[in-house]
Amino acid sequence: MDEVEKSKIIFQPSGRRGEVEKGLTIIEASRQLGVDIESLCGEKRVCGKCMIRIEEGFFEKYGIQSSKDHAGEWLIEEEKFINAKQRKAGYRLGCCAKVEGDLLIFVPEESRAGKQVVSKAARDIHIEWNPAVKYYYVEVAEPTFEKPTADLERILDEVNRHYGLENLDIDYIALRRLPSQLRAGGWKVTVAVWMDREVIQVLPGKREDYYGLAIDVGTTTVAAYFCNLATMEVLDTVSMMNPQCKYGEDVMSRITYHMMHQDGLQKMSDDIIEGLNSLVKQACEGTHPPKENKKRGGSDKTATAEKEEDNHYLRLNPSDILDMTIVGNTAMHHILLKLNPEHMGLAPFPPVVHKALDIKARDLGIQINESAYVHILPIEAGFVGADNVGVLIAEEPYKKDEIQLIIDIGTNGELVLGNKEKLISSSCATGPALEGAQLAFGMRAAPGAIERITIDPGTREVDYKVIGRDSWRSYSKPEEMQAKGICGSGILDVLGELYRSGVVLKSGRFSPKQKSDRFRKNSDNNQPEFVIAWKEETSIGKDVVITQKDVRQIQLAKGALYCGCKLMMRRIGIDKVDKVKIAGAFGTHVDREKALIMGLFPDCEIDKIISIGNAAGDGARAALLNRKKREEANWVSRNVEYIELTVEKDFQQQFIEAMQIPHMKDEFPHLKGIVPDEILEQK
Amino acid sequence: MDEVEKSKIIFQPSGRRGEVEKGLTIIEASRQLGVDIESLCGEKRVCGKCMIRIEEGFFEKYGIQSSKDHAGEWLIEEEKFINAKQRKAGYRLGCCAKVEGDLLIFVPEESRAGKQVVSKAARDIHIEWNPAVKYYYVEVAEPTFEKPTADLERILDEVNRHYGLENLDIDYIALRRLPSQLRAGGWKVTVAVWMDREVIQVLPGKREDYYGLAIDVGTTTVAAYFCNLATMEVLDTVSMMNPQCKYGEDVMSRITYHMMHQDGLQKMSDDIIEGLNSLVKQACEGTHPPKENKKRGGSDKTATAEKEEDNHYLRLNPSDILDMTIVGNTAMHHILLKLNPEHMGLAPFPPVVHKALDIKARDLGIQINESAYVHILPIEAGFVGADNVGVLIAEEPYKKDEIQLIIDIGTNGELVLGNKEKLISSSCATGPALEGAQLAFGMRAAPGAIERITIDPGTREVDYKVIGRDSWRSYSKPEEMQAKGICGSGILDVLGELYRSGVVLKSGRFSPKQKSDRFRKNSDNNQPEFVIAWKEETSIGKDVVITQKDVRQIQLAKGALYCGCKLMMRRIGIDKVDKVKIAGAFGTHVDREKALIMGLFPDCEIDKIISIGNAAGDGARAALLNRKKREEANWVSRNVEYIELTVEKDFQQQFIEAMQIPHMKDEFPHLKGIVPDEILEQK
Repeated sequence: MDEVEKSKIIFQPSGRRGEVEKGLTIIEASRQLGVDIESLCGEKRVCGKCMIRIEEGFFEKYGIQSSKDHAGEWLIEEEKFINAKQRKAGYRLGCCAKVEGDLLIFVPEESRAGKQVVSKAARDIHIEWNPAVKYYYVEVAEPTFEKPTADLERILDEVNRHYGLENLDIDYIALRRLPSQLRAGGWKVTVAVWMDREVIQVLPGKREDYYGLAIDVGTTTVAAYFCNLATMEVLDTVSMMNPQCKYGEDVMSRITYHMMHQDGLQKMSDDIIEGLNSLVKQACEGTHPPKENKKRGGSDKTATAEKEEDNHYLRLNPSDILDMTIVGNTAMHHILLKLNPEHMGLAPFPPVVHKALDIKARDLGIQINESAYVHILPIEAGFVGADNVGVLIAEEPYKKDEIQLIIDIGTNGELVLGNKEKLISSSCATGPALEGAQLAFGMRAAPGAIERITIDPGTREVDYKVIGRDSWRSYSKPEEMQAKGICGSGILDVLGELYRSGVVLKSGRFSPKQKSDRFRKNSDNNQPEFVIAWKEETSIGKDVVITQKDVRQIQLAKGALYCGCKLMMRRIGIDKVDKVKIAGAFGTHVDREKALIMGLFPDCEIDKIISIGNAAGDGARAALLNRKKREEANWVSRNVEYIELTVEKDFQQQFIEAMQIPHMKDEFPHLKGIVPDEILEQK
Repeated sequence: MDEVEKSKIIFQPSGRRGEVEKGLTIIEASRQLGVDIESLCGEKRVCGKCMIRIEEGFFEKYGIQSSKDHAGEWLIEEEKFINAKQRKAGYRLGCCAKVEGDLLIFVPEESRAGKQVVSKAARDIHIEWNPAVKYYYVEVAEPTFEKPTADLERILDEVNRHYGLENLDIDYIALRRLPSQLRAGGWKVTVAVWMDREVIQVLPGKREDYYGLAIDVGTTTVAAYFCNLATMEVLDTVSMMNPQCKYGEDVMSRITYHMMHQDGLQKMSDDIIEGLNSLVKQACEGTHPPKENKKRGGSDKTATAEKEEDNHYLRLNPSDILDMTIVGNTAMHHILLKLNPEHMGLAPFPPVVHKALDIKARDLGIQINESAYVHILPIEAGFVGADNVGVLIAEEPYKKDEIQLIIDIGTNGELVLGNKEKLISSSCATGPALEGAQLAFGMRAAPGAIERITIDPGTREVDYKVIGRDSWRSYSKPEEMQAKGICGSGILDVLGELYRSGVVLKSGRFSPKQKSDRFRKNSDNNQPEFVIAWKEETSIGKDVVITQKDVRQIQLAKGALYCGCKLMMRRIGIDKVDKVKIAGAFGTHVDREKALIMGLFPDCEIDKIISIGNAAGDGARAALLNRKKREEANWVSRNVEYIELTVEKDFQQQFIEAMQIPHMKDEFPHLKGIVPDEILEQK
């Protein structure tokens, strides 16, 4: 019976193999066998990124008979991505094809999910010291027959007498540990109090340093700042891919995954919690001496020298972490907390909760000190989440005179506009195009991704740079480039460059007049395309191109963002902004000039376009180190007016206009001299 | 190797058998094999109740070779309880003898721990309705584009608008369930709010009834009142033996068990938590239709009739229980909460905590609604626990003019004295004698226990009643009695009766002059003893007697209590009390007159000696149904002055005097006419 229900699978080129249950999709099988197949849409059969090839024949080495017939019915959704020739060659989509017998599967380079390059460093922002958790040192008298008061009350009396804190509660687990700590400290203890309300730890003797983590749970990246809560020092920044990426690249595909799988929410939540725990561990391990130092022999240092060196390490453990703050967009927030994200994914997008939450780490399964709370920052509206609140409390536009436009570009664009008089926010569906999904050669920011592009307006020759190699194409041999696709920052470059060099017109259409061997019509579908990297420069054995459809996708994304900005400006009654701040990894990679050329946001002095890095994470850190920032976050989340753009009266018209590159000459005075006049003046 | 380390054990008469690790004591082995051996002292080798007999020989039926040599070294502690003849016959103490080879062990009737008779009904006391958890019904508008507010905030806004509750928090698990409940109820929900502070449940539609449990964790018995929090009705009273009894009968032996076993606290706590969970289950099952009704066929009722009958059942589940209050003495309190009880067992007896605690049921492992809190009432001092606080808020002596003496007699006597002017409390070490431990034939209130005794002052003939049989000895055939020992209420009777009938003198010595075949000297130890039940009336094949040593033990206990009362009266400056209230199971069994004869407490009008039943449990119930009672409990626990009696200056002298029966003629005017003058007037 068992053999009837399982099939043998081998994935190439990794060679991973095993038996899996029949009926699974190939993507599901790949997960079980630890093979990463790219899946940007979360198996909704719309991104086409998971293309694989079924090999036919008897493979003696593995003893399996593989056949295309073993991969289940051909589905209509596959037509879009796989032409007749490819189909004949055995190509299928991993989300459509099923395991119905033994299979040898080849995963082409383009379909392999690479390890993403992640870098989110802590910025230097000013924060006042006032953490939610504070340490108080007290010395208490030993109990006597005259005053046989309980351990806890003896401590609380002293805390009250010396520091004026009254009516403190105590966490149950901290209480259980209290009697031994009190005696171990010889009746002298350090008491950690959360929000002047609850004792969460009692430690023997006098302690000064204690620790916390501020976490930004992004859809793609999770970053954590490991802070000393006493000194405010950032000990370390640790980060990782969001482990939920395997369920879909963007917010909507994760929500869909939940709706289509009964245990989807549980699985995705468990994965991110496990991810956070591994970040906690990673942060702590950074304070331990490296394992090499501990090896016997192998070092010519004296024992004393080693010991001295060892003393520089803090040797912290997860239980030393007494506080944690978390920001994230509404979907990441809901999924992390196992709150049903289904309704916030459907109009009118109501979330389950707005307000900030303080949840015991142990209730969330987060392995820091068991008595500690995790503070989840509040969210504004359906698509403007706690990450945006983080950005706001880090940037404080509500304290400024100048009018700031703060843009957080991801799959979803989040916009805040205003100053101390009024602040409005909105979100626009930029879609995943700017992150590479749905483009013919879009990919994540992983090695081999083209991240910078320039096009010579005279020759229309292309120069570019890939992640993992310092030299640009023009300084390399073709075969050294090993390009694989184009990632977000490359995509941001490409449209502006295509436009500035006259390859595409204002409307977004490829200029039909142009002469360049890079410009051609695709032999399969007769659509125009432009070659960015020639076959011999790639690791995938074919030209990396931008197609007319790709240009349209990018236009849709930039149009949504630009239209959002314009409608918000109209709402607030202004026609220019003083400052544009771009948050997120996106911001650090964007070429301000090129972004302005493609008309990603309204015109602004180039110097006033600022990348603010991971401002959401900075906000989390501010809330970790200063409890007043938590109040501020609550205030701002309630006082930013959320505008639902799609219900604005001429939204459609505005959106269509916004898709042009750049919208109108007069609206971009700062492009004068950057883009040739004849380009700017085209009708 | 395995066979070398394990030995085969058979217990008779139960026939339970199995292999146990070598080196265990016989009591430990008996636990593993599910055999209950009496162990009043918690294996401290001082009570002698766990006597068993090792059978010698080869037992073919079981294939084992049993030998006294297999039971380990003879210990000095065993000398006290096992004489040379018994030793030769194979008798050992179960706590001393060890498994060192195969053993056939006989557990005599006296050493078998019986199932105790437990009855703690809820009294009718007046309580105002004001529970900590309250239900609020609201109807909320569906989200729209204009107002896409989050689910939680929509609900909280309505709760605020209609009921004026502001700034409510929500339990994390309740929040997770909220979106589906809100939609299941068609935007109409009932919200359970704890202490006007935290939402702990959201249910679809309009609900009215909801439930709670008030629990009294006694050292011996655990009783739970299952209440409808909406109507205050007591649906059921469920009770059980405290499962910790197997670790020792009294508070001190449990503390000792913790000190002597590394996982002792964990084990005892887990056992009581498991016990509470089984009480919860039992309470809920009482609301389900009996299983017989559900059997197919087997009933001649029509389906409709069955259904109608079924409708009378509430079918409640543990998740329907939204609140729980717990009282218990300080040791039970600490052990339940896994708080180290070691220090409160040693002078000056400081507990870990005094104040009331609100702990999430899930943190305690208590399986009621996961979001519910468990409220643990505060404790006064080391030996005056939350159970006494429960008694106080049920009886409210602090609201009365009359001076009340409230006595809670257990292994430890807890005393409260005073009125609305002043209230003082203390505890005295009555020891376990009044509950049967350390007496030659003492036992728990189980079937076969002598619970009532009268002695004819003329003939000195004894009449008595046993638990499990309605007819007294004088109305029964001898062999019908099946007496086994004497339980607490019988012990309370016996000293007064021995004294009133002249068998013992005021000093406690047996009167040497008396003529009765019941009075004799023990052939083994030459000590005087008095026969209560003759051999043929028992199930253990020997006379049940009261020895001179037994009388001394009872005197020590009653002396401690009486001395405590007197010292407290002196402290407060009074020489008589207006009312004596006796709490606990003890109170319901005590014969007021006989208790007064033996001088258990100071003289009082017999009509003013009142049994208040399980007043501690009533207090728990009051705190469950009325949150003001929780405040009152906190207030009273801080405002009752605790007196440490043993440090009062003439404590020793007072204690010695108090051991006399009754102390002094003039102090007991109410005994006039009850006890013959010549008895009262003896020097």
